Amino acid sequence: MSKSIKFVQGNEACVEGALYAGLDFYAGYPITPSTEIAELLSDRLPRSGGKFIQMEDEIASLCAIIGASLTGRKVMTATSGPGFSLMQEALGYAVMAEIPCVIVDVQRGGPSTGIPTHGSQGDVNQARWGTHGDHAIIAMTASNHQDVFAVTVEAFNLAETYRTPVILLFDEVVGHMRERLVIPEAGEIPLVDRLRTSVKEGVDYHPYLPREDGRLPMSDFGSVHRYNVTGLYHDMWGFPSSEPQDIHALLHHLVDKLENRTNLIARYQEYYLEDADYLMISYGSAARSALHVVENRRLRGEKFGLLELQTLWPFPHDIVREKCARAKFVVVVELNMGQILREVKLAVDQPQKVFLANRIDGVFITPADIVNIIRLIQGKGV
Amino acid sequence: MSKSIKFVQGNEACVEGALYAGLDFYAGYPITPSTEIAELLSDRLPRSGGKFIQMEDEIASLCAIIGASLTGRKVMTATSGPGFSLMQEALGYAVMAEIPCVIVDVQRGGPSTGIPTHGSQGDVNQARWGTHGDHAIIAMTASNHQDVFAVTVEAFNLAETYRTPVILLFDEVVGHMRERLVIPEAGEIPLVDRLRTSVKEGVDYHPYLPREDGRLPMSDFGSVHRYNVTGLYHDMWGFPSSEPQDIHALLHHLVDKLENRTNLIARYQEYYLEDADYLMISYGSAARSALHVVENRRLRGEKFGLLELQTLWPFPHDIVREKCARAKFVVVVELNMGQILREVKLAVDQPQKVFLANRIDGVFITPADIVNIIRLIQGKGV
Amino acid sequence: MSKSIKFVQGNEACVEGALYAGLDFYAGYPITPSTEIAELLSDRLPRSGGKFIQMEDEIASLCAIIGASLTGRKVMTATSGPGFSLMQEALGYAVMAEIPCVIVDVQRGGPSTGIPTHGSQGDVNQARWGTHGDHAIIAMTASNHQDVFAVTVEAFNLAETYRTPVILLFDEVVGHMRERLVIPEAGEIPLVDRLRTSVKEGVDYHPYLPREDGRLPMSDFGSVHRYNVTGLYHDMWGFPSSEPQDIHALLHHLVDKLENRTNLIARYQEYYLEDADYLMISYGSAARSALHVVENRRLRGEKFGLLELQTLWPFPHDIVREKCARAKFVVVVELNMGQILREVKLAVDQPQKVFLANRIDGVFITPADIVNIIRLIQGKGV
Amino acid sequence: MSKSIKFVQGNEACVEGALYAGLDFYAGYPITPSTEIAELLSDRLPRSGGKFIQMEDEIASLCAIIGASLTGRKVMTATSGPGFSLMQEALGYAVMAEIPCVIVDVQRGGPSTGIPTHGSQGDVNQARWGTHGDHAIIAMTASNHQDVFAVTVEAFNLAETYRTPVILLFDEVVGHMRERLVIPEAGEIPLVDRLRTSVKEGVDYHPYLPREDGRLPMSDFGSVHRYNVTGLYHDMWGFPSSEPQDIHALLHHLVDKLENRTNLIARYQEYYLEDADYLMISYGSAARSALHVVENRRLRGEKFGLLELQTLWPFPHDIVREKCARAKFVVVVELNMGQILREVKLAVDQPQKVFLANRIDGVFITPADIVNIIRLIQGKGV
Repeated sequence: MSKSIKFVQGNEACVEGALYAGLDFYAGYPITPSTEIAELLSDRLPRSGGKFIQMEDEIASLCAIIGASLTGRKVMTATSGPGFSLMQEALGYAVMAEIPCVIVDVQRGGPSTGIPTHGSQGDVNQARWGTHGDHAIIAMTASNHQDVFAVTVEAFNLAETYRTPVILLFDEVVGHMRERLVIPEAGEIPLVDRLRTSVKEGVDYHPYLPREDGRLPMSDFGSVHRYNVTGLYHDMWGFPSSEPQDIHALLHHLVDKLENRTNLIARYQEYYLEDADYLMISYGSAARSALHVVENRRLRGEKFGLLELQTLWPFPHDIVREKCARAKFVVVVELNMGQILREVKLAVDQPQKVFLANRIDGVFITPADIVNIIRLIQGKGV
Repeated sequence: MSKSIKFVQGNEACVEGALYAGLDFYAGYPITPSTEIAELLSDRLPRSGGKFIQMEDEIASLCAIIGASLTGRKVMTATSGPGFSLMQEALGYAVMAEIPCVIVDVQRGGPSTGIPTHGSQGDVNQARWGTHGDHAIIAMTASNHQDVFAVTVEAFNLAETYRTPVILLFDEVVGHMRERLVIPEAGEIPLVDRLRTSVKEGVDYHPYLPREDGRLPMSDFGSVHRYNVTGLYHDMWGFPSSEPQDIHALLHHLVDKLENRTNLIARYQEYYLEDADYLMISYGSAARSALHVVENRRLRGEKFGLLELQTLWPFPHDIVREKCARAKFVVVVELNMGQILREVKLAVDQPQKVFLANRIDGVFITPADIVNIIRLIQGKGV
Repeated sequence: MSKSIKFVQGNEACVEGALYAGLDFYAGYPITPSTEIAELLSDRLPRSGGKFIQMEDEIASLCAIIGASLTGRKVMTATSGPGFSLMQEALGYAVMAEIPCVIVDVQRGGPSTGIPTHGSQGDVNQARWGTHGDHAIIAMTASNHQDVFAVTVEAFNLAETYRTPVILLFDEVVGHMRERLVIPEAGEIPLVDRLRTSVKEGVDYHPYLPREDGRLPMSDFGSVHRYNVTGLYHDMWGFPSSEPQDIHALLHHLVDKLENRTNLIARYQEYYLEDADYLMISYGSAARSALHVVENRRLRGEKFGLLELQTLWPFPHDIVREKCARAKFVVVVELNMGQILREVKLAVDQPQKVFLANRIDGVFITPADIVNIIRLIQGKGV
Repeated sequence: MSKSIKFVQGNEACVEGALYAGLDFYAGYPITPSTEIAELLSDRLPRSGGKFIQMEDEIASLCAIIGASLTGRKVMTATSGPGFSLMQEALGYAVMAEIPCVIVDVQRGGPSTGIPTHGSQGDVNQARWGTHGDHAIIAMTASNHQDVFAVTVEAFNLAETYRTPVILLFDEVVGHMRERLVIPEAGEIPLVDRLRTSVKEGVDYHPYLPREDGRLPMSDFGSVHRYNVTGLYHDMWGFPSSEPQDIHALLHHLVDKLENRTNLIARYQEYYLEDADYLMISYGSAARSALHVVENRRLRGEKFGLLELQTLWPFPHDIVREKCARAKFVVVVELNMGQILREVKLAVDQPQKVFLANRIDGVFITPADIVNIIRLIQGKGV
């Protein structure tokens, strides 16, 4: 693959990133505003030797990629809110069985069928808490197409590194907007391949016995080793266990493998933070307007800064606390009723200085919307 | 129905509460540890003129009671974690279409199939955030069978009052433990019946036109009025709309009808709070051990108190903040990795004084477990 | 003595340090886990012209070295908890009569005979308060053999400088663990020799008349000067006095000569303190596990730091307060029920942010033990 | 015994209390200022059928009463600082083997032989920390003869109730001062007798198996049951164990049986505390002068109050914190360099408002001494 420049939708940037990362199996069911991803891959994937399959619904789609991943493939599915809700049970299975896979949710307005053709960032907390039981998850997002490409590649890398589902939480605005994308040459972004066991055929393979570095090598299912995969708590052979010490150890393994590496996994962009008195935190399409405000204020000599989060989960509490330490106030800009706002409040030392600038009516938030809200925060009224 | 005394499991106390409240349609799919609810109702419900139907899965179960509710029935389904995950898409529909219904989740250890026969409180945040998009929800729980009965009745009353799904978040310990239950006489606990429209046949009925008090009268679907029901954003006739002002108004209506009444909806028990220096906050089975600790410490002259939450969502922030104001530290006791802990930290003025006493290995937390954790919190070591 | 490298137990490192410092008289009674010190010295000391004597018990042992010190020798005894308890009366005498001497307590589990073959740090407060009456004392410790050597040399230097008993509070883990030790060449570490009076024979010598710098020159007892030595309050000739001003002056002299020099006497190691948000304070063997935790957390980007105390008494309050000033929390790691914890709480401005990570069952505290306790302190539960 | 009124020394009040409480075995070695206790008992005890024995030293004295206690006697010894230092090893044995016994320390000026004929309160911390290893202890004191009598009776009751040594920390001023003492009639103060096992001869008796209420019944040693008594960590038969869980459990038993009952064991007197703005905390003879100051200030309308501690260990942290909560400042009045001052600082929420009024030169502190120090605390200078 040589470097090329395209003018594409965000959904296509995601497709390009997935292919760059080595995607070779996709299963899905179309839903606005994610459909272009399936549409493009139905053409592109078979050309490069991969498999595309349209399933009967979203449950089947996620189950299909879980199975394919176990056999050694790099896999992805894409959907929007209602489909993502249907995937919650299988998502928990992928967490428990430690299946590398990438799930794209191009967010539209919810709840329920909501408002299919308009953007939103309303599924952020669902990505964290949508399946039952304690667990950890990785979720990433981006505000522009170059970053959509990059975080998509990163999503595959993280899925393989940590044997975990990774969620890409894009939104309709980014998904459908067209913008320049430079596709890096092969090798420019390092890829993480499946970590396969070095255990030979005929020798016992323990699918859930960590190496010294905590990683769990896999063996292509159906190949030379027989082993058990289950959504129940299990031991190092994958066999169900209800021993308290096994449950405690496995749950902590599932959570700690991600949350103890929060600072390493965290991906974010900083704009003018070094001396910022007024800090904005945003992500996805909303960060575009937030950045616009910050740059305008800097022109006026006002010390605004922007922290654009690209990793939403595990939430980078330490980084946010540190960046917010000297800010006079913090404004979280997002297209929902304050979902990341909650995390910022939990992270910082002075939650009362954190405010929300948002829009929830399906219309994209503008710099003017944000400025109006900042006036109110500064006590200047409407 | 006359007053009677029984020695029953918590699941049966729930059944008794539902029948007392007027349940007349139940659809479900059995899953440990909730199965006794279906089992008992398959016998009891037909005897009192109600309908019991076992569906092919949990998606169908929730859809069935949504439909039955629209025709004017008081409805319920019961499940555990994996089934609750499958219900998330239809749950969002019930929120958007404002369907009165009661969903019982008798929690077992998750994620995924997890540990079916052991207790947990791991689905608390899923009950709040499991479906996509911003929304509000009511979720309740109880620590003993008399309260299981009472909150079940209350769940039906709130579902009818606010046209909303209500989730009962019990746990395996309460569900399977046997304890004395006194069933009140008919009329002792007031019941809220379906608010039916006073609009006559042949006159336009607006299913989503609020009365002055904010409530929305219903008309039995399939009866005298024709109207539209949808998961899309809609106007007062129920017809889809993508007008920003309609979206903004409907989302605020869905959220505000519950969250603006948080203090009214909140149900909780207080133990020794008036002069408590050390405050425990707990709910469900865990609150039993917390209460034991508090009573033991009071015997030693130490000012411990317990706030037992019965309404988990909408989270009673104001009440928690007020109760915690004078506490030297606050210990949240729960059977998960700290889900209500997050809300308590968000509610109080000094989040750094809030700690977690928990157990996550499928074993019930004992007073001794809590005491050991309190020692550490008090800086006294092991 | 030329530089050499050995692979030795901590007890042998102490022996090497004592010999390097100029030890020439040892009296003791063997007790686990300190016995190797006596055993090695019974061989080494006579070879270098010193005297080794095994006494009938620990009381006699301390009394013997007090006498030998008065005659001008550098002296030491070693014991463990039960023997140290027996020494308390004579220790007070050494304080009052200002006798330079070094007492090693290789701590095992107490109280009473306790658990002789397992480590503990349970005698820290006894070292401070074990003898009756107000007084000051120097007590030092170390976590590795190079430091065991160094603080042993320092103990002799301080004993001579301040005419005081110095206690070396090692623990069984350090005492019995084998590790590399590089013995410095002669002269590499400066030694403090006995300060002998310049008063000539036949001229009045005042054993308790301070020089301008506060130091009290000694005259080898039994040599050219006659003078009185007593455990009673006394004047500059050493004769008993019950005059209030003499009592007040002597008690203040005994206390102030050490406590007014706390910052000079204090010896400690810092690890990553400059920007630490989370501070651990530890000493002796426990500090090894604490350092392991700190280094692991730094790899994860979490700002942990360690203050390893080597001087325990006089407790370096000013240094601890300053190092703790910016920490979000402070964890004292020690093998007892929180003895240094008390001092840290007394030293810092916010005692409620100081916690204890400990182990008291005879098993060495591991990094995993500390991490589990930190989770609870951070409010994250088990 | 009928009620009678005497004019006696404090040491004699202690003797009367011990006899009232049922003392029947005393062993001791005379030392100023406690000697009157031995002298009086050598006459009184044999008359009432008890045994008095003068031993060769203080170590033997404590060991003798430990043995006698095991055979079923109520036992006591008395000494002063130097003798108390010699007892530290056997004291730890009594803690570990859970021997009911009462040890009187009539404090004189220390360290070492110090100032034998003058009062002091310098052994307070030694009573807590003098023996090696973590443990708990009870120590009590009093400021007047009626209370000396009462706390002496209480000391025997607590020793029997908790199978523990109890230390009576009187001071020379109280011990030698003469004052009126009314001896209550027999039965007026309830006595706690030895709790003997109900296990019959020939049936296994477990000397360290707690009853449901936590108490350990005893069997007179040398009588019908054979069992092991040791200073090593041990199991319920008294046999040595080095199992970590046994060590952890026994150490916590030894500590918790007292410290978890701190509020119950605590004995104190309150003077004008209900509305006190300026709080004095004192104990023993020093409390007499403190009370004098408080009463004088009340006559001038200044809201001074006094908390007189009679139980020093376990230190009543909760009670002190609560009593100090509203005080503008707290002055600890004691005859040492601030030993209880440390505990008060650890107990209260604002340690910086706690000050020390003391005297350390062997002269009793007068009200005028305290008033001069209060002037300085109030910023009024000398």
